[in-house]
Amino acid sequence: MKRQILLTPGPTPLPAEVREALARPIIHHRTTVYQEIFKEVVEALKEVFQTRNDLFIFTSSGTGAMEASIVNFLSPEDKVVVIVSGKFGERFGEICSAYGLNTILLPVTWGEACPPEALSGVLKQSKDVKAVYATLCETSTGVCHDIQRLTQVSHDHGAILVVDAISGLAADPLLTDSWGVDIVVSGSQKALMLPPGLSFISVNAKAWEMAKGARLPKFYFDLLKAKKAWQKFDSPFTPAIPLVVALRETLKRIHKKGMEKIWKECAQLAESTRKSVTRLGLSLFAKAPSNALTAVLVPQGIDGKQLVRTLREKYGIWVAEGQGELAGKIFRIAHMGYIQKKEIDLCLSVLEKEIAYETVGQ
Amino acid sequence: MKRQILLTPGPTPLPAEVREALARPIIHHRTTVYQEIFKEVVEALKEVFQTRNDLFIFTSSGTGAMEASIVNFLSPEDKVVVIVSGKFGERFGEICSAYGLNTILLPVTWGEACPPEALSGVLKQSKDVKAVYATLCETSTGVCHDIQRLTQVSHDHGAILVVDAISGLAADPLLTDSWGVDIVVSGSQKALMLPPGLSFISVNAKAWEMAKGARLPKFYFDLLKAKKAWQKFDSPFTPAIPLVVALRETLKRIHKKGMEKIWKECAQLAESTRKSVTRLGLSLFAKAPSNALTAVLVPQGIDGKQLVRTLREKYGIWVAEGQGELAGKIFRIAHMGYIQKKEIDLCLSVLEKEIAYETVGQ
Repeated sequence: MKRQILLTPGPTPLPAEVREALARPIIHHRTTVYQEIFKEVVEALKEVFQTRNDLFIFTSSGTGAMEASIVNFLSPEDKVVVIVSGKFGERFGEICSAYGLNTILLPVTWGEACPPEALSGVLKQSKDVKAVYATLCETSTGVCHDIQRLTQVSHDHGAILVVDAISGLAADPLLTDSWGVDIVVSGSQKALMLPPGLSFISVNAKAWEMAKGARLPKFYFDLLKAKKAWQKFDSPFTPAIPLVVALRETLKRIHKKGMEKIWKECAQLAESTRKSVTRLGLSLFAKAPSNALTAVLVPQGIDGKQLVRTLREKYGIWVAEGQGELAGKIFRIAHMGYIQKKEIDLCLSVLEKEIAYETVGQ
Repeated sequence: MKRQILLTPGPTPLPAEVREALARPIIHHRTTVYQEIFKEVVEALKEVFQTRNDLFIFTSSGTGAMEASIVNFLSPEDKVVVIVSGKFGERFGEICSAYGLNTILLPVTWGEACPPEALSGVLKQSKDVKAVYATLCETSTGVCHDIQRLTQVSHDHGAILVVDAISGLAADPLLTDSWGVDIVVSGSQKALMLPPGLSFISVNAKAWEMAKGARLPKFYFDLLKAKKAWQKFDSPFTPAIPLVVALRETLKRIHKKGMEKIWKECAQLAESTRKSVTRLGLSLFAKAPSNALTAVLVPQGIDGKQLVRTLREKYGIWVAEGQGELAGKIFRIAHMGYIQKKEIDLCLSVLEKEIAYETVGQ
């Protein structure tokens, strides 16, 4: 297979120790060896989540944990607000609708972050909103939200705040406990440097209170079942053993560096990427950019889809196209997790060359 | 880590090529390379399922596909019959209840297979049963069910037959299309020789018809979403890429041998295991034994849990304890997938020694 430089916002490249861990002989999950790994992983994940709340691991894509953050805490016809500033906000809305919730969508122009005042306005108009669904980093636009203020506003109106931190975790600072974020959802294939296949959810006391009366149906994503199993350091269903074993390796790497340094380095790489992009004469799409990825507007006169294809086919460099309404209009370069500065630099120099070639003489 | 011989009915040992495939650099799932693998895997799985029906892969444990086999085909209060002859039959019942179905449990003595006449009796009494939930190999008891006849009986009464073939697939013959089985569910960590993390479901035309009107809520396990994505050789959510890549390797191995030979060899290993167990003076628990595993009654005067622990701690041989009401009363030796005869033989010779030691002088 041709060499590839993976700069997509999930999946992201795997460190060597992850690949080694995935290749180990399989162990049984109802054993002391595995239980010790499981305990260590959950504790280390809490550091990444910056929480002492309960935290659970599902075998699923991140969407599974998003579903869990809905079905475990609500009852049919409950009122919720979903902030929609891109594809993943839309997804929260779709799940809420699929489960028959009274779903109020709060649309935000793609590329912008939701102003806390806009949420406040909606919550003033609509009484009895139980939960607000927000996104830390909206992967489709590269926007980072002010989760601290959105949480305050939600709490001021008696609602819990649920955040999709699937691509934002360990890239954009998220202080779950000190900000009082009630539920945080994430996934394995972004800044955690693992393959896709695991999702995570942290739940605070207030959310557990809501869970007691929640009547939406669930089984695989039932958190009370997970909580009960966790008392014996077990999971209700067979876990994706090699992924959990490999997760221990990346969490060691993260712990060694510390969250402050992880965020700082990610912010620096994001900043230098944005500067370089601007220096190339290109425009940034996100008004409030995330540290996880940079969304770049495709310049006038360039075929955005073709540009992404050229990077892939000619250079083996994988950046992501725009999704949904942004198809062809932006491309996205990730700089989270195990992605290296030299890879970003290579991508940018190739971009410079290709764009110059396309626009020369125009 | 100490050497281990894994003879549990999931997870099962991994062939070398699976471990190698898991350790490869990750590839993006929206690429021609991955799509080609995905197509190949789905087609090869259909051979294992013995079907030309639609077949889908979820990132989840087998339970996720069990849930999918319920939420996609039924509406609240729909009447279903669940055959309960062990822990996994119970699970089908729990999922049906969690989703508010009118659930009729058909209890069968653990260790026995459900007589088709018993199902027929229940279906005669209860009109308008939409679906019957059955198990091919009930992993908790080692029993194999007569899915062909249970399907006939279900069809005679206008119900579809859904089978949990999680541990039975590629061990006990299952002729999905020629028997007319409507929905088949399976998982990766049994005879398919993979780690846990993938689940599978096949769906025939009659079941799709039911899906059209099904009103149970779902999102992550929504098969219409999966079907739509599959038209572009895509999945609705990021798949567990390395597991799918590794699955291609085991499916090559299976295809090379052919299903007839896979079943035959598994049956021979099961038969020789049962004979050896009997020769040791031990009794078989399952009246209709599966080829996937052998459930052995713990003899009088022996502490079953201690015996299993001794095998683990003294010899590194992992057999499974009894589950639920069978805890301490049976142990289970798997002989599916990549498990080798020499490993079973070693286990049996160790068993002979340990049991003789325990019972001598009694």
